[in-house]
Amino acid sequence: MPAKEGIFMENSPVSIDLAACLSALRKTNPLTQCLTNIVVANFTANVLLAAGASPAMVDNPAEAAAFAQIAGGTLLNVGTPYDQTAAAMRDVAQASSGNWVLDVVGYGLPWRSAIVDDCVAANHPAIIRGNASEILTLAGAVSQGKGCDAGDETVAALPAAQELARQHHCTVAVSGPVDYITDGTNTVTVSNGHPWMTLVTGVGCSLGGLMAAYTAVCETSLEAAAAATAHLCVAAEHAAAESRGPGSFAVALIDHVTLLTPTAFAQEAVIGRG
Amino acid sequence: MPAKEGIFMENSPVSIDLAACLSALRKTNPLTQCLTNIVVANFTANVLLAAGASPAMVDNPAEAAAFAQIAGGTLLNVGTPYDQTAAAMRDVAQASSGNWVLDVVGYGLPWRSAIVDDCVAANHPAIIRGNASEILTLAGAVSQGKGCDAGDETVAALPAAQELARQHHCTVAVSGPVDYITDGTNTVTVSNGHPWMTLVTGVGCSLGGLMAAYTAVCETSLEAAAAATAHLCVAAEHAAAESRGPGSFAVALIDHVTLLTPTAFAQEAVIGRG
Amino acid sequence: MPAKEGIFMENSPVSIDLAACLSALRKTNPLTQCLTNIVVANFTANVLLAAGASPAMVDNPAEAAAFAQIAGGTLLNVGTPYDQTAAAMRDVAQASSGNWVLDVVGYGLPWRSAIVDDCVAANHPAIIRGNASEILTLAGAVSQGKGCDAGDETVAALPAAQELARQHHCTVAVSGPVDYITDGTNTVTVSNGHPWMTLVTGVGCSLGGLMAAYTAVCETSLEAAAAATAHLCVAAEHAAAESRGPGSFAVALIDHVTLLTPTAFAQEAVIGRG
Repeated sequence: MPAKEGIFMENSPVSIDLAACLSALRKTNPLTQCLTNIVVANFTANVLLAAGASPAMVDNPAEAAAFAQIAGGTLLNVGTPYDQTAAAMRDVAQASSGNWVLDVVGYGLPWRSAIVDDCVAANHPAIIRGNASEILTLAGAVSQGKGCDAGDETVAALPAAQELARQHHCTVAVSGPVDYITDGTNTVTVSNGHPWMTLVTGVGCSLGGLMAAYTAVCETSLEAAAAATAHLCVAAEHAAAESRGPGSFAVALIDHVTLLTPTAFAQEAVIGRG
Repeated sequence: MPAKEGIFMENSPVSIDLAACLSALRKTNPLTQCLTNIVVANFTANVLLAAGASPAMVDNPAEAAAFAQIAGGTLLNVGTPYDQTAAAMRDVAQASSGNWVLDVVGYGLPWRSAIVDDCVAANHPAIIRGNASEILTLAGAVSQGKGCDAGDETVAALPAAQELARQHHCTVAVSGPVDYITDGTNTVTVSNGHPWMTLVTGVGCSLGGLMAAYTAVCETSLEAAAAATAHLCVAAEHAAAESRGPGSFAVALIDHVTLLTPTAFAQEAVIGRG
Repeated sequence: MPAKEGIFMENSPVSIDLAACLSALRKTNPLTQCLTNIVVANFTANVLLAAGASPAMVDNPAEAAAFAQIAGGTLLNVGTPYDQTAAAMRDVAQASSGNWVLDVVGYGLPWRSAIVDDCVAANHPAIIRGNASEILTLAGAVSQGKGCDAGDETVAALPAAQELARQHHCTVAVSGPVDYITDGTNTVTVSNGHPWMTLVTGVGCSLGGLMAAYTAVCETSLEAAAAATAHLCVAAEHAAAESRGPGSFAVALIDHVTLLTPTAFAQEAVIGRG
């Protein structure tokens, strides 16, 4: 009895309507605030613009929390934190239990871990995302990661992700060759993508921004995380098919984030149950 | 009796010699200092290099004001201000009534508005640029903007722009589908461009940098603002004609900023009286 | 009697095995920490990923020095220093005499010069790199540079580079149409490259990052500096051959950093004795 269109998860209340999410994103152009790092701010803004969102990188402590009140979604990414951006992130988390996404880049490094811990202690994020090592470390498990690189298998982080999701009343997204996305009760997988996504800096970080944009238009944070992941990963498949290296791939990826139609999106996304 | 080459504005002393401006830019490679935001610093530097200028992003308070004394032009852009870059911007404005351009990104957000207000109170910029909402808000008028997005028609901001120009003894440039550029007495329009310019982050911000470069080689700030605007907008038309999305467009735009010849520039620019 | 493969310098103990260096880089994916500037952080990370390294931009004073202990190589680049990144650079230099590369962008500007001076006073870097003007100024000689632009001939800086190398027990690399790389005793030249490398921001800065990556896998810092320089410069020749301006060149450069094979690398690199 699938009352709604889209992907209906058997024996589950989860419905993911990718085409509707994408259409809504392009129709409403949600204002998407990003407090992110100096490495990927440009690429993240371009992915958001290409997708149909309206990015605004308001990341200073004098403006960030108030801006989050008018943004449709907000990204907190601890890739290159400094005193001022860290303060701004804490302010945003403190002020809102709304549509903010926390990307725990490099969790395990002590100072940024404290920033992340403070944010999740202050309020519930909509989505926490990271690679397997970051999610395992955030959950208190043993990880093999070094720096910002995942040293762990994605599926191995699923129990930790589910526990984190229940603990923080949010969705947790673990990126990898197969992406796992869970709200603690329901888990979906996204099997699209291409290895070159790991050879362009900011692809993962821009996914965090895209999740923030989708939280403004999707019904649940699980749906938002899945739609954002599938959007970028399906576009990456098209981009890789016509590229010969990470430089041309990055350019084509932006193009295909724009070119993807809702119909093709629904057809090509490979969403499963985790 | 057009005594000078280029576009002579009827019944007006305004002469805009685009070909001469572009040739002078490429001949002198003006050192162009940018205090700009983390999102667009890279793209801005690449646009400046492609145009023929020599960018230098010296934006800390220990060096910025002294550097402005040797730069041909300086950009102050409040896109992502922090304490140190804000202090550096105030120092530059305080030290100079010369070739600095003020890009009022997100004016209306309280903290950055104070930075902008302090800069224009300290000295006269050569050029103030913004979208219609930013210019209206800076002039104290009512605006429909949200965040960094213009919510207002460009032409609706023209009276405010003219008033601002007279008040601050500078040129004011309002970006939009048609760009309006005024020194308070004379107003010119630039009708070139392409909608994809709004889908690549930093195109507008790089235009501020390009204006700063042109102030070093043009006779007036009105001419500099018009030449920079037309240069980027004509290049954008060429780039869009051979692109299929914002990724490939951004790459082609940089190429065409370089490839544009003075002759083609003068022929293809659509400059009018505002 | 060339006991080792690769380029053997006649009457000299210097051996540069480019193919082996590149293969080692791709096999070990060295974790490469970058404390660099807001303009080039993205491009630098992409060059490192394209080359086979694993970049991590950990540049805050709470994390940088400890991270340097686990990184295979570390870049300190003073392009846009702020209080926090400057403190982090000093911490890294203080803590380590290991594989760090110091890129003296804009040396001569007073504040950043003090940062550089403190770093080299604290410990020996593996490599110091700069353009001719920066190296001359660092060595206390008279320079014609303005801002970050070299105003001096590369070869004219060679004696200063050799003296600096002996003084700081490191390798000094001077970039230009021909690159000079010296450890004070042995000097090699790299004659590959293309003028468009100077029209894309961050190409030189990314070379500093690539040198840091190669220090993790090469036998000497001289070899690391030469391998990194030749890698980027040979890739640039391929990229320029199929590009029409700096936009398309930058994209193709990233592709060719990936596409270069060890065999082609060894064949096409033009390494000489300085």
